[in-house]
Parts: sequence; C-alpha cells; structure tokens
Amino acid sequence: MDLREKTLRKKNIFTGNIINVRVDTVELPNGREATREVVEHPGAVTVVALTPERELLLVRQHRYPIGQDTLELPAGKLDAGEAPEVCAIRELEEETGYRARQVEFLGKFYTSPGFCNEIMYLYRAADLEEREQRCDEDEFVQVVKLPLEKAVAKVYSGEIVDGKSIVGILWAAGA
Amino acid sequence: MDLREKTLRKKNIFTGNIINVRVDTVELPNGREATREVVEHPGAVTVVALTPERELLLVRQHRYPIGQDTLELPAGKLDAGEAPEVCAIRELEEETGYRARQVEFLGKFYTSPGFCNEIMYLYRAADLEEREQRCDEDEFVQVVKLPLEKAVAKVYSGEIVDGKSIVGILWAAGA
Repeated sequence: MDLREKTLRKKNIFTGNIINVRVDTVELPNGREATREVVEHPGAVTVVALTPERELLLVRQHRYPIGQDTLELPAGKLDAGEAPEVCAIRELEEETGYRARQVEFLGKFYTSPGFCNEIMYLYRAADLEEREQRCDEDEFVQVVKLPLEKAVAKVYSGEIVDGKSIVGILWAAGA
Repeated sequence: MDLREKTLRKKNIFTGNIINVRVDTVELPNGREATREVVEHPGAVTVVALTPERELLLVRQHRYPIGQDTLELPAGKLDAGEAPEVCAIRELEEETGYRARQVEFLGKFYTSPGFCNEIMYLYRAADLEEREQRCDEDEFVQVVKLPLEKAVAKVYSGEIVDGKSIVGILWAAGA
C-alpha cells in the first residue's frame, strides 16, 4: 500500500526566528482530505564528546518551554547553509570551551516527525583541546563532566530528560 | 547561578488541532529581555512491546512533515485527561491489534525542549494478546515485527530515524 500523502494546499501561519508554522491540506491514501500542522525547523546537531580524561561533556541550561533546567549533550541549531559537521565543532566549542580536532558522524534522526521536520545530526567528537567557553551574550550554559557510564545511569534514573541527549548517550554507550 | 527565565508576556499565535504556538517575552538571568517561540503539545506515549514470539512490534507509516515513510514504535498522543498508561495500552492495540495485559513505565523525556513542551512517556508492554488492528479511519499504519536485536541494528544503520523510537529501542536493549 502506498502510504504517501499528497500536498494540495499550503498555508503559512507563522514565521519566527527559530520555527515557522504551516497548515497544509493533503490527500490521504483513501482519497479523502485532511489537514497537517507542520512546524518547520532549520535542523540541529548533538555532540557526544569525551575529554582527554575520558569524561563526557554535558551542559546544564534552562529550557523555557518545559520550565526546567536540563542536563543535555552540547547541541545547537544549524546556521543557514552550515554543514552539520562544522556546526558540531562550533557548538561544542561555544558551549563547552573544547575544540574537537576530530568528529565522526554517528547518525541522524527526527525529533518529532508527526508534526515537525527538525532533523538532528549526531556526532562523536574526539581529540579535544581545551580553549574557552564563549556562549552568545544571552546564552547561559554550565558545563558538567561525567564518566559516560554515569550519564547512562542518569538516563535510566530519569535525571536526563532531553530526547536527543538520551539518543546520543545510549547510542555512544552501545556502539 | 540561577538559569531561570521569567515570563513577562505571553502572546498566542496559533491554536491548532494538535499544537498551539505562543511567542513569550522573558527576562533572562542577566536582566535583559528575549522572546521565546513555544510549541504546545498534549504529550504522547511510545510503547516497546514484544509479542509472545519475542518479536518487537513496529509500525510503518507516512510522516508528512518529513515527507517519508518511517518505521517506528507504536505511539500516539494523549487524549485530554487520559493517563499515559491507559494511552499506551490503547495506542498499542489500535495500531498493532495487540492488547497488553501488563505495562511497565520505563521513563519520560522531552522530544525537543528548546522550542516545544512535548513530553513522551515510554512504556514496556508485556503479556500481549492478539486482537484486531483498528486504526482511525484516516490512519494508515502497517505492522512490522522484528527481533529486538534487528531493530537495534536498524537504528545504527540509519533505517530507523524516529527519535522516540530510537530512545525506546536502545533503552529496552540496554536495560
């Protein structure tokens, strides 16, 4: 069975700094019409990085939409036209102060494909050199270092609740 | 350092069937103002379910926002006021035709907390009884059964690209 949905009409609802929102009308496989709410996102990267001391780099920051501080892997949105690998190196250094001389692509996934096109590129960074954390002026991020197995334990205990970070930590622990 | 952001104003942008969108003005820890684009979502469940034959239940469906068919764990949005555990049993049966006599809460996570409050409750379902798939009239879902280790392989090979499904599969494989 062909599961595809054919776009009949697109309606732009909102153009923001980070996301855009559309409501499209589609034709379903059974010929009926339906609407699809779509959040457009530029895509992002997540980085699994171990320091020379074999500690995983994490960042603690406030996540306004969920009203809590979270412990996450370093991550960030792609700038326009930016290659994911370049973004991974840039975001890691901005958020943690560590520059990676090596990055390895692990995989990519969609954070919530039912309503959003956000794609997440997952990298492992190695051969790190400590420089200086230099977040954007309005970005507030605290660096936390943990052995990978302690980060895995914080996934299973519920202390790490960010989906992309859980993917990255379990992926790196199992690969 | 207190990382919290204080809400100064909320502006409703869009009220949809699945999501709502707001743009809030917040006060940052440094006293400056910034805007936050927020997608409101009702929350959802994802279910790791093994059949009596020890096969993992997956579903193939079209995901319009990313323009592809995906192989995912059974999942679905919470109805208003619905307990996640009840939703897990309901969605598993609707999408796969299997009724779970036992469900175990594994954990919860946020799919993209930078701009969205979607929370995902992860369950393991056991003691399954085969009944009848009964999707909504406009829902098109194909059931796929795989040994858990084959699903893990499809994560690492890039064939499974849905974030919540990757979390569920790696979580179940490692726990």
